Amino acid sequence: MAFRAPIKVCFSDIDNAGIVYYPRFMHYFHLAMEEFFASELGTEFATVLHEHAVSLPTVHLEADFRRRLKYGDRIDMEVRVIDIGRTSITWGYRGYRAGDGEDMVVEGNNVTVCVTTDTFEKINVPQWLRQALTAYMKTFDKS
Amino acid sequence: MAFRAPIKVCFSDIDNAGIVYYPRFMHYFHLAMEEFFASELGTEFATVLHEHAVSLPTVHLEADFRRRLKYGDRIDMEVRVIDIGRTSITWGYRGYRAGDGEDMVVEGNNVTVCVTTDTFEKINVPQWLRQALTAYMKTFDKS
Amino acid sequence: MAFRAPIKVCFSDIDNAGIVYYPRFMHYFHLAMEEFFASELGTEFATVLHEHAVSLPTVHLEADFRRRLKYGDRIDMEVRVIDIGRTSITWGYRGYRAGDGEDMVVEGNNVTVCVTTDTFEKINVPQWLRQALTAYMKTFDKS
Amino acid sequence: MAFRAPIKVCFSDIDNAGIVYYPRFMHYFHLAMEEFFASELGTEFATVLHEHAVSLPTVHLEADFRRRLKYGDRIDMEVRVIDIGRTSITWGYRGYRAGDGEDMVVEGNNVTVCVTTDTFEKINVPQWLRQALTAYMKTFDKS
Repeated sequence: MAFRAPIKVCFSDIDNAGIVYYPRFMHYFHLAMEEFFASELGTEFATVLHEHAVSLPTVHLEADFRRRLKYGDRIDMEVRVIDIGRTSITWGYRGYRAGDGEDMVVEGNNVTVCVTTDTFEKINVPQWLRQALTAYMKTFDKS
Repeated sequence: MAFRAPIKVCFSDIDNAGIVYYPRFMHYFHLAMEEFFASELGTEFATVLHEHAVSLPTVHLEADFRRRLKYGDRIDMEVRVIDIGRTSITWGYRGYRAGDGEDMVVEGNNVTVCVTTDTFEKINVPQWLRQALTAYMKTFDKS
Repeated sequence: MAFRAPIKVCFSDIDNAGIVYYPRFMHYFHLAMEEFFASELGTEFATVLHEHAVSLPTVHLEADFRRRLKYGDRIDMEVRVIDIGRTSITWGYRGYRAGDGEDMVVEGNNVTVCVTTDTFEKINVPQWLRQALTAYMKTFDKS
Repeated sequence: MAFRAPIKVCFSDIDNAGIVYYPRFMHYFHLAMEEFFASELGTEFATVLHEHAVSLPTVHLEADFRRRLKYGDRIDMEVRVIDIGRTSITWGYRGYRAGDGEDMVVEGNNVTVCVTTDTFEKINVPQWLRQALTAYMKTFDKS
């Protein structure tokens, strides 16, 4: 089954329309990816940055917002690996509101490229990461 | 010519990779739209929300990030109106780094729907807004 | 013992100096207070706002920042109730870095006043809240 | 006269109580300080960080919030230099709502220490900065 990060909408995520400010959903995507590294790959994202010296800037993003979220809502943000290219990774995200019987509130994907943290030079997806992501893909493909 | 909002990358827009955190680009899109209302339509976005009682939640988003931004960079965020549907508006954004001779750093578009601020019921694009946006579209189509 | 909310420094909390942007500590104070309501008072802060129709804007703040935090650090943010006035509550916060043997990274307090959510008129601390906070004060006074 | 940075409350600065989230005021303090460096000292804060290799983390903060701010409000954030120690600078901030005939909405001060950006070792306030800040203090002392 795909990894899900529990996220709680906090007081300051809300905008003047009374709902979650839409760029916060991209923040939720990122938070979920950070948790995914720690939980599923066994490597903190901070370690990837500071010790592996690899950074994963986003070059493309798409998202559909299906339901609005309010303060106090909780979502489970699912993280999927959709594709692994030579230098890029395509991630998929689906947010489900807790207690809604699987009601999807947001769905999106982004493409990140691997670069060195110091010079931002594009590099191949590191072997350890490729293997770990490939193994993860197999896991949730069966679900 | 299309409206451009000048935006300065601030200290806290930067993430631990040393570049602008990508969800901040969506915030820049929103800031530019807010400025667009005040500057091109003559109506503050706060007035749209609180007096016209209309809110414009985003239901779809796409973006391509072409160049990374660092602290101190300045961009001009162009706002275009791509399409006006019955209840929806499609907006286009292009961010150009100042002093780069038109180097585009980000390009994206989002679809917003018109809803009432109190009940979030979908409504037709208000007539005053449709007219103003249509007039604006004609302006930059000639450019 | 005083309530402690576990908080994880996320990727975007970091500023261009490579450490937690100092206004984020105030956000951590607020997050911890939100968790305090749910965990210790049995009432979600969202319920206080939307059902009790009470808001708690901050009118005064003081903080000392003793250690810098980096991405991946975890802190336990302790919440204390220092004083309950007629319309105001004084809160105390102490953040301890996990795994540091009680190394305090931040200490602060703020004063909030009770107001109605609609008109922002100052009101007395509601009786249910005063009782719950008083009971809580007794608990950690013994610790 | 003391420097004032114009700041516009944006859509996402608002919290679920409908007013500016109080940690955003600290962000406004920081924004105003960033503008102060560029405008009054002739050095971008990014240059201080990246070329002078000096960072100014905050070690103490105090603030009083006198009026709430809503979306669309504009404030002028005044920046004063209160004291220059051996390694520290004490800054004063006062925010005035535009069009209010000098109504103060927030007042605060913070103490920053000078450190190297790479090792965060405490250093003396650099001579160029001490001179520039001292000259600035004389200017507004006369106002």
